[in-house]
Amino acid sequence: MFESAEIGHQVAKKEYKAREPKLRSDLLDAQYALLAKAKRPVVVLVNGVDGAGKGETVNLFNEWMDPRHVRTEAFGPMNDIERERPEMWRFWQVLPPKGRVGILFGSWYTDPILSHVMGHEKKARFAQRLEGIRHFERMLVAEGAVLVKLWFHLSKAAAKERFRALERDLKNAWRVTKDDWERFQHYDEFVAVSEEALRKTSTGDAPWVVVEGSDPAYRSLTAGQHLLEALRSAAGDTPPPSTGVAVAADAVDGRTLLGAFDYTRALSRKKYEEQLETQQARLAKLSRDPRFAARSVVLVFEGMDAAGKGSTIRRLTQALDARHYRVVPIAAPTDEERAQPYLWRFWRHVPRHGHVTVFDRSWYGRVLVERVEKFCPDGDWMRAYDEINGFEDQLVQAGAVVVKFWMAITPAEQLRRFDERKATPHKQFKITDEDWRNRKKWPLYERAVGDMVDRTSTEVAPWHVVASDDKLFARIEVLRTLCDRIEEALRRQAHPGRR
Amino acid sequence: MFESAEIGHQVAKKEYKAREPKLRSDLLDAQYALLAKAKRPVVVLVNGVDGAGKGETVNLFNEWMDPRHVRTEAFGPMNDIERERPEMWRFWQVLPPKGRVGILFGSWYTDPILSHVMGHEKKARFAQRLEGIRHFERMLVAEGAVLVKLWFHLSKAAAKERFRALERDLKNAWRVTKDDWERFQHYDEFVAVSEEALRKTSTGDAPWVVVEGSDPAYRSLTAGQHLLEALRSAAGDTPPPSTGVAVAADAVDGRTLLGAFDYTRALSRKKYEEQLETQQARLAKLSRDPRFAARSVVLVFEGMDAAGKGSTIRRLTQALDARHYRVVPIAAPTDEERAQPYLWRFWRHVPRHGHVTVFDRSWYGRVLVERVEKFCPDGDWMRAYDEINGFEDQLVQAGAVVVKFWMAITPAEQLRRFDERKATPHKQFKITDEDWRNRKKWPLYERAVGDMVDRTSTEVAPWHVVASDDKLFARIEVLRTLCDRIEEALRRQAHPGRR
Repeated sequence: MFESAEIGHQVAKKEYKAREPKLRSDLLDAQYALLAKAKRPVVVLVNGVDGAGKGETVNLFNEWMDPRHVRTEAFGPMNDIERERPEMWRFWQVLPPKGRVGILFGSWYTDPILSHVMGHEKKARFAQRLEGIRHFERMLVAEGAVLVKLWFHLSKAAAKERFRALERDLKNAWRVTKDDWERFQHYDEFVAVSEEALRKTSTGDAPWVVVEGSDPAYRSLTAGQHLLEALRSAAGDTPPPSTGVAVAADAVDGRTLLGAFDYTRALSRKKYEEQLETQQARLAKLSRDPRFAARSVVLVFEGMDAAGKGSTIRRLTQALDARHYRVVPIAAPTDEERAQPYLWRFWRHVPRHGHVTVFDRSWYGRVLVERVEKFCPDGDWMRAYDEINGFEDQLVQAGAVVVKFWMAITPAEQLRRFDERKATPHKQFKITDEDWRNRKKWPLYERAVGDMVDRTSTEVAPWHVVASDDKLFARIEVLRTLCDRIEEALRRQAHPGRR
Repeated sequence: MFESAEIGHQVAKKEYKAREPKLRSDLLDAQYALLAKAKRPVVVLVNGVDGAGKGETVNLFNEWMDPRHVRTEAFGPMNDIERERPEMWRFWQVLPPKGRVGILFGSWYTDPILSHVMGHEKKARFAQRLEGIRHFERMLVAEGAVLVKLWFHLSKAAAKERFRALERDLKNAWRVTKDDWERFQHYDEFVAVSEEALRKTSTGDAPWVVVEGSDPAYRSLTAGQHLLEALRSAAGDTPPPSTGVAVAADAVDGRTLLGAFDYTRALSRKKYEEQLETQQARLAKLSRDPRFAARSVVLVFEGMDAAGKGSTIRRLTQALDARHYRVVPIAAPTDEERAQPYLWRFWRHVPRHGHVTVFDRSWYGRVLVERVEKFCPDGDWMRAYDEINGFEDQLVQAGAVVVKFWMAITPAEQLRRFDERKATPHKQFKITDEDWRNRKKWPLYERAVGDMVDRTSTEVAPWHVVASDDKLFARIEVLRTLCDRIEEALRRQAHPGRR
């Protein structure tokens, strides 16, 4: 969920100053229109990592809008009166009426997340509470409310740096308490648990918006923009569209995950040869480990055309026993496949224990080519994120190690490879008109990949984005990552108590 | 969920013979239309209590339709091949393609229910698996499938009788095994767990249909009718409507829960006086029990006009301390309430610990008067069942004892009371034109009440339908039931290990 919120989004001060007055007056206009219409309430949830600017944003919202028609509530631990009622009672008491804005600083997410992070509540209870939240929010939306769920994120390094900076600044030093540093010790668990919470509650009606919090100008403009959209939609005559799933709006600074990626990593031929031998031997050994008989591997290769998927797959299968692996190339579906639900054709190839299935392109086609080429209605690819997460979760539950690679190349490198293919007789078959057409849609694919990684990189099945402008580096990186993941899975098996 | 499937539905043999040929030819026509269109598959799930006619119905479906285009699959324990994959894998393998019918005898519900009944899996894990099923079915529906989820039910007495009858019949005695009798020992747990499963997975897109299984003629016509509707909807040009929640179609024999109710129970004045004293004393004591300081009571009174709600409530509050109870009469919502989600006005009155709130009419207005009078769109009252169950569940989690009474009177008794009110000067204010108007809609209310009880009588917050033609009997029955429920809750508290 947080990949695109760790790429250092920022907006220059000058630009902020130029854009802020307009945003502000738009917000006021929208707020009054909402009030006049009095058809729907707007509920703003403010959550996220400590130090990511939650408080500042709440203050700003109150400054930007007419505070007489905004109700801001902060939630801490429950008091006696609240503890004797259902936990949702205190939130029901402060819901804004139609036409008004309610800002909930801390919300129904805070306690479930913290209770799970601190180990007071186990996974199953956590899942139950998230399910309760989904029901509650579905009801709010059905009753007409527009929800703005803002999550302010900071990378670990940025969070640390932010605390340090506050401490150095005498005027703000009081903001950083011992508790804050203590909580910072739990950063990793907090982010992992929050990621799950956001993923499972990011529904079409009530999507999460993740805002990178390190740059105040970027953060404020982004949060304000989302608030504005919500106010306008709540003041509109038609109900807000159900988008099927949250998809991040274009970033206010125009940066994307792939755009911000480091493509320069490379390997010498000599190092490559050495490493290839080492890693292939490692893979051969791991796949023959007795413990592997109770596991399987599901490998996914995705990437732009000519990213090097095929040649990388070959380096990998060279180390495996032909009886135990299978490469499944994914092209257009057959008639039989078209007569079934989308995921059916992948379920067919789920490996038995002790086996490896390599998908050369995969179910991610739904949120890449089908989205970009409009092969399916928007609603279909939008709901696919959730379905895919569910599918992979089931694979992992059944003992599979799910390893997903995005082989990342630059447009310049792709062009070089296309030209090379054209010039090499035995490679000409590899390049078609379609490849050139796809190339023109690079920006659309880039955005789709960003959403895909944000929405489907989970703790159990993370994405590995591999710098692939240098083929040698990419191949070794893929082999090594695969071995690491299998090794880790077998180790966990030996110590089932560990996560 | 099963209330309306224990009222002894039946269809005469003669009527069955008259209706069966038409149903059969309609089914065939619909099946061919489905096949020709090849737009959607129909997935039929056959589940339920042992001995309720599941197997017979599957055979009948295959006899009625063209079996070449029907795929029937029965599911038992998993085999080795299946165990090495995710549990849903085996179901994916047999999904019918578009245009075809797949009958799943035993389904993805069987294992979660049995594992929980047998104690292999706890409540939280059970809830998680149901959630997984909801996701899976939502995906199927989004991909175009029409689901027919048939649950065949038998009351405990009927199940026992059915086994006995089979044993007596030499031709069928082999059908009843020792295992069957062993499983019958778990009837109560099985039904309680199944009820939860059905309630939580009866969604608008994929509702459950509960079929009373004791009479083969009724059972077959009902199941066949639902199958026919599904085939037609799947062969139609427009997608099947999303109904928000399953609401039982009119029973093929026209019987309803309230129609089949025994209204004759009565009490002599002498017995009444005795009992009134006993039960009021009991209530007074219970409400002052030290353990009650950690509990609360939420009481719901619903019933037709003049059913005796007010006078019953007075008999009850006489026993309580005025500082600790509150009667909340529910009429049309205020402006402030109208600006909030429907349940908001009831959340306001959730009692603290040690307190009792009596709702004279309640949130059930949503699925009674608002449904019958069309005060809200159908989708709103349809989704209310689920919201209400969620609300009451939260109350119970927070320590409340939720006790709900439907005070059941006959139309004749209502008329008698209306006439009496008209004739008695100090009671005239109690009767308005609206009462007479409501009376004309009796059949609509009767159906709404049946759906309400089926959908919202849960293990944690059951409905108590009280025979109220005799006011004296009704008052005592309410008092006694209330005391029993509080007593039971306090006892559980003392032994938190028990369910």
